[in-house]
Amino acid sequence: MIGSNFTNNLRVVLVAPRNPLNIGAAARAMTNFGFMHLRLVNPYDVAYQEARSAVHAQEILRSAQEFKTLAEAIADCTLVVGATSLGHRELQHPLRAIEYGGRLIRKHLATEPAALLFGSEKFGLSNDDISYCHWLVRIGTSGSMNLGQAVAVCLYELTRKATASKPEKRKAAASAELDRLTVRLTEVLRQSGYVHSEGTEAKIRRLVRRLDLPAHDVEVWLGMLRQIQWKVSRDGQ
Amino acid sequence: MIGSNFTNNLRVVLVAPRNPLNIGAAARAMTNFGFMHLRLVNPYDVAYQEARSAVHAQEILRSAQEFKTLAEAIADCTLVVGATSLGHRELQHPLRAIEYGGRLIRKHLATEPAALLFGSEKFGLSNDDISYCHWLVRIGTSGSMNLGQAVAVCLYELTRKATASKPEKRKAAASAELDRLTVRLTEVLRQSGYVHSEGTEAKIRRLVRRLDLPAHDVEVWLGMLRQIQWKVSRDGQ
Repeated sequence: MIGSNFTNNLRVVLVAPRNPLNIGAAARAMTNFGFMHLRLVNPYDVAYQEARSAVHAQEILRSAQEFKTLAEAIADCTLVVGATSLGHRELQHPLRAIEYGGRLIRKHLATEPAALLFGSEKFGLSNDDISYCHWLVRIGTSGSMNLGQAVAVCLYELTRKATASKPEKRKAAASAELDRLTVRLTEVLRQSGYVHSEGTEAKIRRLVRRLDLPAHDVEVWLGMLRQIQWKVSRDGQ
Repeated sequence: MIGSNFTNNLRVVLVAPRNPLNIGAAARAMTNFGFMHLRLVNPYDVAYQEARSAVHAQEILRSAQEFKTLAEAIADCTLVVGATSLGHRELQHPLRAIEYGGRLIRKHLATEPAALLFGSEKFGLSNDDISYCHWLVRIGTSGSMNLGQAVAVCLYELTRKATASKPEKRKAAASAELDRLTVRLTEVLRQSGYVHSEGTEAKIRRLVRRLDLPAHDVEVWLGMLRQIQWKVSRDGQ
């Protein structure tokens, strides 16, 4: 089995999906976020069988399990959560925002298997499906969500880094490099008749430092300045 | 204009999208998360024009703006961020995880317009497209993402509640209600010959309290017990 306990413990369950493209989209989202167990309850279309055996079908799609009933599909799960964008308030089922519900599912997955249920594109989860759920999660602010997008958002939330990782910082140019640039630019400006007093070089130095120049770009800028300088000093002759 | 400054300041820009279905999926995700400004740079297919004028096209799709060049599409934006699932490390462009980058975009949107760029389904953003970006955000862990899903995840992160909202708690049964249940259940068990000692009622009370019973269900349970009690005491006569 690949993956950590955490990812290995989740079963993504699509209940009566109608469109093989959506099953494929769900599988793709699972790949993106590192989950592997896809279960299907009564997928409608025979085209799904073809999609599954297609050469380019992803591993997840190929190893997806089919079940006749929802009860069988979730038999090994100690937590069953239904995804809804509508609310089903009339059902008196606990309904949690995915931001909060995701945290509870994550905790559960650390030690035990859980199922995340998605209903058919047209009807969502039925009242009968929902009766198997411990609680529901709601995504988005208005309207019903596309199936593949709902799966992607839920899996994103499950794998979301709680403490936002620091940006991968680009390497800034070192002071000596900025000085080389400053000197070269000052020379060019002097040769162009722009620099009149000695104080100007400090001004230019400050100007260059305010650019927040990446180390990677220094040589390119120097090359451009050398070219300009060549032109400027040539014309001056 | 509907929407707050925040949502109103975002432009979702699809660069050379090939598939009208994906444009529709992006528009649907925008509706789900409350954004309204969709901009398209050179959409490939004439079918898009038809989709746009279709009866059921969403408002966002209908009011989407088309541009010949990316430069025109982002002209009014003071922050331009490209979405990528690959990294483009070779470009030395600052690359941020969406968890962190989303926070920066949110801050910017509070006061000024920003563009979030998505490349074509097949090729992603080109090096030329990326040169217009201040920085890039990366989503997911492996593989390239479906366009509609990438849009959905980014918009979800932008609107994500930083402090996960409390669950909408179902009302728990009050102690008196649990006692009514406990008494009734004890009676039934006594009449059935289950309860032999006085200590058993306390046991049953603890048992009932561990159920975490919703207030909403108490009457149903009591009704069932009454029915059972009627049957039990009738058979005992």
